[in-house]
Amino acid sequence: MTDDPIVWARDYMPIHQSLSAEYGESKPFENCTVAVASHLEYNTGVLIETLHTAGAEVFFTPSEPESTKGEVVEYLDAQNGITAYAEEGMSNEAFSEAQHSLLDERPEIILDDGSELIGKAHECHPDVASEIRGGVEQTTAGITRLEAMEEEGVLQFPVYGANNSPMKHRFDNVHGTGESALTNIAITTNALIAGKRVVIAGYGYVGRGIAQKARSLGARTIVTEVDPRKALEAHMDGHDVMSMDEAAKRGEVFITATGTSSVIREEHIAEMEDGAVLANAGHFDVEIELSALNVLAEDTSKPAKGVTRYHMPDDRRLNLLAEGRLVNLTGPFSKGHPGEVMDTTFAVMFEAAVDLLTTDLTAGLYQVPDRLDRAVADRKLETLGKTIDEPTDEQRTYDSDWRETDTGF
Amino acid sequence: MTDDPIVWARDYMPIHQSLSAEYGESKPFENCTVAVASHLEYNTGVLIETLHTAGAEVFFTPSEPESTKGEVVEYLDAQNGITAYAEEGMSNEAFSEAQHSLLDERPEIILDDGSELIGKAHECHPDVASEIRGGVEQTTAGITRLEAMEEEGVLQFPVYGANNSPMKHRFDNVHGTGESALTNIAITTNALIAGKRVVIAGYGYVGRGIAQKARSLGARTIVTEVDPRKALEAHMDGHDVMSMDEAAKRGEVFITATGTSSVIREEHIAEMEDGAVLANAGHFDVEIELSALNVLAEDTSKPAKGVTRYHMPDDRRLNLLAEGRLVNLTGPFSKGHPGEVMDTTFAVMFEAAVDLLTTDLTAGLYQVPDRLDRAVADRKLETLGKTIDEPTDEQRTYDSDWRETDTGF
Amino acid sequence: MTDDPIVWARDYMPIHQSLSAEYGESKPFENCTVAVASHLEYNTGVLIETLHTAGAEVFFTPSEPESTKGEVVEYLDAQNGITAYAEEGMSNEAFSEAQHSLLDERPEIILDDGSELIGKAHECHPDVASEIRGGVEQTTAGITRLEAMEEEGVLQFPVYGANNSPMKHRFDNVHGTGESALTNIAITTNALIAGKRVVIAGYGYVGRGIAQKARSLGARTIVTEVDPRKALEAHMDGHDVMSMDEAAKRGEVFITATGTSSVIREEHIAEMEDGAVLANAGHFDVEIELSALNVLAEDTSKPAKGVTRYHMPDDRRLNLLAEGRLVNLTGPFSKGHPGEVMDTTFAVMFEAAVDLLTTDLTAGLYQVPDRLDRAVADRKLETLGKTIDEPTDEQRTYDSDWRETDTGF
Amino acid sequence: MTDDPIVWARDYMPIHQSLSAEYGESKPFENCTVAVASHLEYNTGVLIETLHTAGAEVFFTPSEPESTKGEVVEYLDAQNGITAYAEEGMSNEAFSEAQHSLLDERPEIILDDGSELIGKAHECHPDVASEIRGGVEQTTAGITRLEAMEEEGVLQFPVYGANNSPMKHRFDNVHGTGESALTNIAITTNALIAGKRVVIAGYGYVGRGIAQKARSLGARTIVTEVDPRKALEAHMDGHDVMSMDEAAKRGEVFITATGTSSVIREEHIAEMEDGAVLANAGHFDVEIELSALNVLAEDTSKPAKGVTRYHMPDDRRLNLLAEGRLVNLTGPFSKGHPGEVMDTTFAVMFEAAVDLLTTDLTAGLYQVPDRLDRAVADRKLETLGKTIDEPTDEQRTYDSDWRETDTGF
Repeated sequence: MTDDPIVWARDYMPIHQSLSAEYGESKPFENCTVAVASHLEYNTGVLIETLHTAGAEVFFTPSEPESTKGEVVEYLDAQNGITAYAEEGMSNEAFSEAQHSLLDERPEIILDDGSELIGKAHECHPDVASEIRGGVEQTTAGITRLEAMEEEGVLQFPVYGANNSPMKHRFDNVHGTGESALTNIAITTNALIAGKRVVIAGYGYVGRGIAQKARSLGARTIVTEVDPRKALEAHMDGHDVMSMDEAAKRGEVFITATGTSSVIREEHIAEMEDGAVLANAGHFDVEIELSALNVLAEDTSKPAKGVTRYHMPDDRRLNLLAEGRLVNLTGPFSKGHPGEVMDTTFAVMFEAAVDLLTTDLTAGLYQVPDRLDRAVADRKLETLGKTIDEPTDEQRTYDSDWRETDTGF
Repeated sequence: MTDDPIVWARDYMPIHQSLSAEYGESKPFENCTVAVASHLEYNTGVLIETLHTAGAEVFFTPSEPESTKGEVVEYLDAQNGITAYAEEGMSNEAFSEAQHSLLDERPEIILDDGSELIGKAHECHPDVASEIRGGVEQTTAGITRLEAMEEEGVLQFPVYGANNSPMKHRFDNVHGTGESALTNIAITTNALIAGKRVVIAGYGYVGRGIAQKARSLGARTIVTEVDPRKALEAHMDGHDVMSMDEAAKRGEVFITATGTSSVIREEHIAEMEDGAVLANAGHFDVEIELSALNVLAEDTSKPAKGVTRYHMPDDRRLNLLAEGRLVNLTGPFSKGHPGEVMDTTFAVMFEAAVDLLTTDLTAGLYQVPDRLDRAVADRKLETLGKTIDEPTDEQRTYDSDWRETDTGF
Repeated sequence: MTDDPIVWARDYMPIHQSLSAEYGESKPFENCTVAVASHLEYNTGVLIETLHTAGAEVFFTPSEPESTKGEVVEYLDAQNGITAYAEEGMSNEAFSEAQHSLLDERPEIILDDGSELIGKAHECHPDVASEIRGGVEQTTAGITRLEAMEEEGVLQFPVYGANNSPMKHRFDNVHGTGESALTNIAITTNALIAGKRVVIAGYGYVGRGIAQKARSLGARTIVTEVDPRKALEAHMDGHDVMSMDEAAKRGEVFITATGTSSVIREEHIAEMEDGAVLANAGHFDVEIELSALNVLAEDTSKPAKGVTRYHMPDDRRLNLLAEGRLVNLTGPFSKGHPGEVMDTTFAVMFEAAVDLLTTDLTAGLYQVPDRLDRAVADRKLETLGKTIDEPTDEQRTYDSDWRETDTGF
Repeated sequence: MTDDPIVWARDYMPIHQSLSAEYGESKPFENCTVAVASHLEYNTGVLIETLHTAGAEVFFTPSEPESTKGEVVEYLDAQNGITAYAEEGMSNEAFSEAQHSLLDERPEIILDDGSELIGKAHECHPDVASEIRGGVEQTTAGITRLEAMEEEGVLQFPVYGANNSPMKHRFDNVHGTGESALTNIAITTNALIAGKRVVIAGYGYVGRGIAQKARSLGARTIVTEVDPRKALEAHMDGHDVMSMDEAAKRGEVFITATGTSSVIREEHIAEMEDGAVLANAGHFDVEIELSALNVLAEDTSKPAKGVTRYHMPDDRRLNLLAEGRLVNLTGPFSKGHPGEVMDTTFAVMFEAAVDLLTTDLTAGLYQVPDRLDRAVADRKLETLGKTIDEPTDEQRTYDSDWRETDTGF
C-alpha cells in the first residue's frame, strides 16, 4: 500500500484537480480559516487538501463518529495548516467534545454536515457564531434544522444550502447513495438484490435512486411515501405503493431514505417476516426506531460482520445493518461515497465557500446560486471531454417571440 | 362501433369521473363561458364534457389543425351548451379563422395550448382580452410566449401555467409523450426500437421520458442538450452525450423534444446516414428544419403511411414522420395522448380554472398553486385505491427541531 | 403512396438484399416449385420476392385468414412465376379451400406456419405429400404438431423446424413479438404501459420478451408458468410469479404467450376486475377461451377499434383485443412483424430451404443445422457493419487442454 | 460474532435446509466418502455440512488458493467425519499438495471445480481414478477439460457436468456472478457504475448477466464476442458490439467473462486509457494476460486495497483488480458468491451426486438429467411459497394433436 491514502480518491475527483489548478494560483482562502465537518473518508480528504491548496487554514472534525478513516486523518493532520479534531473509533462523547474544541478555534467559514457545527456554534458558542462569515450545509436534514433556526430568527450568518443544488440532488443523492446503499447491503448480507422484495421508505432523490436501481437489478420494489405526488411518481415508475403498515408485512429488505425519524416503528417491526433485513440510507440513526427493536427483542446476536440480529419472542429474527446508521457510509465494507459524486458535491460546496468571501449577504439561509452550480457542471463536462450544443441566435429569438407573425405558424 | 366516441376515453379518465361527480353537484362554472384550445381528440372530449357538467358553456377549437377527430367534434357539438369551432381536415387558414371566431364569443376563461388563443386575443382582439377573467396554459412553448408577454408588460389577465405543475411534468411529459412518441414511431416505421441508435434532442421531462424508455427497450441512446446539468444527468443515466454535429453522423432515428426551433438544421441533415428516420415530439413543426430538407432534397416520395421520404442528390434517403408535426399526436395511427395522462393534466387545468373564479389575482403569469396540484394527486391515488402514510406528530416535531438536546443525538 | 407496397419493408430487410444479390446469381431454386403459407404482410412479400429472384416458382397462401394485406397479394400475383391463393378479407372457408387448391399444384418445397400446409397435405392429399422434397416450419405450435406426426410415424418427408433455431428464438420471439405486442396493445387501448399491472401467461422466448419490455416501461408484471425453472427465472428477473387463479384477480392487462389452449378460462374470467384488457400474443385464438367469454357475458359492444367489450351480469366490462387472435399481427393498427426480425427469421427459413435441395435427408423432423443459423448471423453482422473477434490459436489450444502442466496453473 | 461462521449463509440456503431435512433421514451417502474441491467460503460450508448430514464422510480442499475463509475451514474440520485439506493463505505449492493428499484418501465421489481433482486423479493417481464411482463438475472451464479428456478416451468414470444445467446457468451465472462481480468492482474502486464505459468480454450467461446489470445501473456497455449469434443478441439488448481492438480504446472498466485465455492481450493493453480498471469474472487468472502487463509496465503500486496499479512508460496507469483472479470471489471485500445462488447450484450438484450412487452409468461426461434439475427448481419454489400452474388435460391433448378436425380450427 502506498503512503498516500488519498491517491486513489484523487484520481476519481477530476473537478477537484481542476479547482486545485485554478485556485492554487489565485489562493482565494489566503488568511482565512475554514472548518469542515464531514464523514472523514478518502474523498473528504481531497476536499480538505483542495481547500488548503486554495490558501485556507483548515480545521476538520467528523460529522458522525463511526465513519472516520484513521489513515486519512493522520495523513492530513501531518500537513502544515491542516488540523484534525478527529480520530478513528472515537466515542460519542469524544466526538462531541472535538466539535466544541474545533469551534474554539473561531473558524471564519464552516462547511457543515447535518448542521453539526452551525447548530453547536449557535447553541453553545454565541461569541464564535457572531463572527463567522458564512457556512455551507450539504444535507437535507441539516437544511431542515437551519430552516427552523431561521424561522426562530436566531441564525447569525449567511448559510448556503448545498443540498438544494441540482448538482447535489441529481448526482450525489440519486447515483451516489443509490448505488452505494445497494452495494453495501449486498456485500454485507452476501445476498442478491434480484428476486427480492425490497421496501424503500421515501421517494425523494435518494429513495428514487435506490428504488430504481434495485428494480433494475431484478427486485420487486415497494415504495412508501407521505407526499401524494411522489407516491404517484413511484407508481408510474413501476414500484408498488402502499402504507408502511402494509409494506411491513411484505418486505424482505427495508431501506429508509426519508431524512425524518421513526419511519419504521414498533407496529411495523411486529409485522415483519423472519429474516427481514433493515438498513438506513437517510440521515441519522433515527429512521429505524432502535428503541423499539430493543424493547421487542429478547436477545441479540452478530451472525455476520455489520449485522445485528434481533431475536423476537416468536422466533422471528430481524437483521439490522450498520446499527441503523447510514449503511453506505458506516457499513463494515464501506469506503465512503463514490469519488465521482463527492467530487461534484464538494465542488459545489467549495465554490459556495469561495462565493461567501466575495459576496455580501445578510444572515439567513440561501440556495446556492445557479451560476455556481452550473459552473461545476461545466467543469465536470470539461473533465469528461464532452461538448454540448449552444442555443443559436435564431433559437433565442424564437424562444422570446410570442406573436403569431413572428413564429411563421 | 358504439355511437358515443368517448366511451373508451372516459374509462381511462377516472379523475374526471370524480370531478364530474363532485362539480356536477356544485356547478362552479354556472353562467360562465369557457374556451378550450387543444388537440381535439378523445380525451379532450372528456375534459370538455366535464367542464360542461360543471356548469360551463364551452367553446372549443383546435390548437393544431392536423390532430382533430371529426367524430369527437360532432358528438360534442351536438350537445346544448357546447359549440365547436373546428372540423377534421381544416386548412391552416380555416384553423386560424376558427380561433378568431371563437374569440368573438368573448369567453371569460381560456384553457389554452401553445398560447394560441391568449396570444391572438392580445394581438388582435384587445377588447376581448381586457374582459377575460383568466387563462390556463398547458405547454412549455406556450409558457415561453407568456413570459415574453409578461416581460413586455402586455399581459391583460392572470394565467396559470399548468406546464410548470409537477403533475404535468412528471406524468404527461415523462410517461405520456415518452411512451406514445415511441409507440407511434414503432408502428409507423414497423421497425424495432431494440438495437437502434436513437438520438434524442433535449433532456427535459419529455426528452428524458423518451430517452429512458427507448434505452430500456434496447436502443443505444444519444442525447443532445444545451444545459450542462441536464447533459450530465443524461450522461449518468447511461446515454451518450454529444453535440448534434456529432450525433447527426451516428443516429438511425432522431427525435426532437426541445420546444425550440431548428434543432435539426441543414448542416446536420447533410451528415445523416441513408435511411435515417426523423420525428418531432416537442411542440411545433419547427424543431426539424423542413425548409432545409426541401432545399437539400431533389425529390420526395411516400414509402409508407405517415412517412415522407426525401431523396438526396447523393442517393441518401431521409424519412420524415408526420411531416415534422408531433409524432405522437398527428401520426397516422395516433389516437392522441394516453387517457390516463390527459386525465391528470386536464384535471390540473380544470382545478386551476375553478380557482380562477374564486381567487382574486392581478394580471400576470402564475404557477398553479401547490394545493391544487396536490389535490389532483390525492384524487388520483383515491381512484387507484392506494393508501399512503401520513407524517406522525413525532416526525413533524423532529423535522422542526434543530437543538442537539432535542434530537437525542 | 408509391406503387410498390414493399419498398419500405425491403429497406428494413438487408439480409434479404444480401441473399438476393448472391442467390440471384446462382439460382438454387431454378425449376423448383415452392409453397409459402404465412401471414401475408409486407415482410412476407420480400421473402416471396427473394425466393422468386433465387429461381423458384412460388405459390403462396395465408396461414391465418385475418392478417392478409391485399396490396401485397396483388403486387406479387402480378409477377410471372408467383401465384396467389389468397385475398384480403377471405372467409374461414375460403381460407381453407385456398390451402387445398395450392396443394393441388404439387409444390416440392413448403415454407409453413403452424403446419397448416404440411398437416393438410398428410391428412387430405397423400399423393402430394409423398412427392414433397421437404418443408420448413417456423412456429412452436407447428413444431408441436410435427412432433406428434413423427411420433405416430406418418411424416412423409424431411422438415426443418426453424422455430428451434437460435436466430428465431432470440430475435423474432424476444424482440419482434415482445415489442410489437406491447405497441399494438398500447395503440389499440390508447393507454400507458407504465404503472399497469400486466399479467403475462408463459415465460418462453415470447413471454419473456413481453414481460421484460413491459416491466422496463414501468409496468408491475405478473408471470404465470407451468415449468418450475422458467417460473424461477421470471422470479429472479423481477416479475411476480403466481398461478393464473391468483393472477386473474390482480391484472389490469392480460397477455397470453404460451402456444397452448385455454390458458385463460371461465374460472379466471369470473374473477377479473372491471375494465380488464385481454390480448393474445401466442399462436391461435385458443389461448383465451372465447367460448367462456361468450357464455358468461350478457352483451357485447365495440367501444374502440379492435376492442370487443364483454358486458358481464355483475356490470364488469372485459375488453378483448383483436378477437383473441394474435394482437401484434391482426390488431387494427398492425403492419405485421417488424421488418428486421422477419428478415432474420425468413433468412433462416430461406437457407434451410436451399439446404433441403442439396442435402439428402430421410423423412423426419430436424433442427436447422447450426452452420445455416450461424451463416445468417454472419450475414446480419455484415449488414450492420460490425466486426467481432476470432478465437486465437492460443485460445483454441487452451480450450482443448486439460493437463495441469499445460495450463501453467 | 457468533461461534458458528455459517449461521448467516445457512439462512440464505433454504434448499439445503430442505435437503438436510429429507436426506438427514434417508442418509443416501452412508458409508460413502465424498471429496469436495471448491472455493472454501461460507456457502460451501453449508454444502459440506449437508453432505455430512446426508451420511457422507467428507474431505474438502480449495479449488483456488486465494478464496479460502479460515474460520469456515476450522469450523468444519472440527467435526467428526469431515476433514480439511486446506488453510487460509496457503501457497500455490501447498494448495497443489493438499489436492494430491486428499486424493490419497481414495474418495468415491468427487464434487469438483475446474476439474482440479478429476484432472489430477487421472494424471497422477490412476489407481485412485480407477475406483472412483463418479464426479460432478460445476464450471464451464472444467467441462471443457473433461470434454478433451473424453475425446482422448481417458476418462475413467461417469461425470455429471452441472454447469450445463439450466438451474446453474440461469441463476448462478446470470444473477450470482452478474451481481457480485459488479458489487465487488464498485466496492473495491469506490466508484460508480452509472455513467461509465464498461467493456464486457464474452456474452455467455455470466457476461450477459454482468452486461445487463451494468447497463441497467447506467453504464454504457460494450460487448466483445467470438460467436456471431451472441454478438447479435448483445446488439439487440442495447450493448455496443465491436472487436476488442476497438473496445480497448474506449473502455473505462474491462470485465472478462469468457472462460478462455488471453482475452486482453498486449496489443489491447497498449491502447487503453489512463486509469482503466481491469477485472476478471471468468474462471482462471488467464483471461487478462498478466505477463503482458508485467512486460509493458515500468513500475507497479498499490493505490487501494485489492488494486495493483501498473505504471506504463507513457504515464498511463492501468488498475488490475484482485490480481486478475475472479473479482467476485477473491476480491478483498468478497464473502464468496451470494448464498441463494450457491444454494441452487450446490443443490444440483448434491442431487447429481445422490443420483450417481443409484444410477449405473459407464465412464463419460453426462449432462445432469432434467428430472434432477427440475426437482431442485420445485424445491426452490416451495421454499419461496410460490404456486404455479399445472397443464390441464385439455392442454396436454391440444399440444399432442395435429389434425385439423381435432383443433377445431
